[in-house]
Amino acid sequence: MSEKITADHLEGFLGNRRLMEQLAFILEVEKLKTILRRTLLLDRSRVETDAEHTWQLALMAAVLAEHSSEPIDLLRVLKMLLIHDVVEIDAGDTFAYDAVARASQAERELLAADRIFALLPADQAAEFRALWDEFEEKRTSDARFANAMDRFQPLLHNFFTEGGTWHTAGVTEPDVVRRMEPIAIASGTLGDLTERLIALAVEQGFLAPRAEAEPRA
Amino acid sequence: MSEKITADHLEGFLGNRRLMEQLAFILEVEKLKTILRRTLLLDRSRVETDAEHTWQLALMAAVLAEHSSEPIDLLRVLKMLLIHDVVEIDAGDTFAYDAVARASQAERELLAADRIFALLPADQAAEFRALWDEFEEKRTSDARFANAMDRFQPLLHNFFTEGGTWHTAGVTEPDVVRRMEPIAIASGTLGDLTERLIALAVEQGFLAPRAEAEPRA
Repeated sequence: MSEKITADHLEGFLGNRRLMEQLAFILEVEKLKTILRRTLLLDRSRVETDAEHTWQLALMAAVLAEHSSEPIDLLRVLKMLLIHDVVEIDAGDTFAYDAVARASQAERELLAADRIFALLPADQAAEFRALWDEFEEKRTSDARFANAMDRFQPLLHNFFTEGGTWHTAGVTEPDVVRRMEPIAIASGTLGDLTERLIALAVEQGFLAPRAEAEPRA
Repeated sequence: MSEKITADHLEGFLGNRRLMEQLAFILEVEKLKTILRRTLLLDRSRVETDAEHTWQLALMAAVLAEHSSEPIDLLRVLKMLLIHDVVEIDAGDTFAYDAVARASQAERELLAADRIFALLPADQAAEFRALWDEFEEKRTSDARFANAMDRFQPLLHNFFTEGGTWHTAGVTEPDVVRRMEPIAIASGTLGDLTERLIALAVEQGFLAPRAEAEPRA
């Protein structure tokens, strides 16, 4: 039945065009529950879904907002986070440390954003698309804090699962340090913690330092 | 390692007590990803997790806020929704149409709330606990709208999976009508849609009318 859930179809038997467009969007983005990420649950039983990841980022933003170095509007941050990954319904989850996949990621995600936000009534399509663009561009304090949550969450999971996706071939400390840069930009406090967690991860063998991973001459 | 993630443990190697309490809470409630609900995904591949359900309610609240019959503070609604189910980490998911389990639900959930919110720094523990109590009591417009989302989401899923949990033995139209009452209280528009969806569900055989389920004399 999933193929049939368009606003046209819904309007046919339920009426109220505006509400049906909102419903079509809600039912479409529900697919975030079927998109798997690389990040392990803390109990290591499986990887998380995009929907679960998204909930956790929103929760973290609500709990950690006070650590933002700049003033933020938490409602905007939450809305931004709630929709930040919906493009992965079409574009898939791109592994943070997969350079090949990341090269085509931006283009795939733009096409997805064009399709998915357009399901909403025009005013809301514009609002949520603008929030998604803002998240991607990282130029406002709200976007910087939202992005910090998006980096900090997998860091926590990798640390507390003794390495997690850091054990992927070729991933070393400098990659992780670079990937986590947005955290310190948004929050000095969380940036300090990130630095400490990365150092501990290397110390405990959860993450390879550069030297070990490089081929010996 | 999950057993060790307490603020005491974290403070020991990371310092910053307040941040460690926040982290202990975040890592504890991550278990919402492991609590299964009865509601099917729209593609019917499996049931959803509490974390996925929670994300979807927050997203729905952000998209549907304009339909609230009373003024609401969307930020409060979102915070309330983000934590409304964390008690299920201890108390489990109680099936909406299981009268026996529901009898002991309130007590189990109160104990869980006492334990889980207390992981946070005292000021945040008080804030989030008050939001959880408010959600449970349904006495404010914010709580009424949040509860409406919590009822409307499984209704949508049951309808668009041709019945879903409504096919459980003994569940009939009057049970669903009663269960969905909070929707119309919070939103006339969503209440009308709910009524229409229930009528269509009966018409299409997704939901048993009372007569069919009652034993014949």
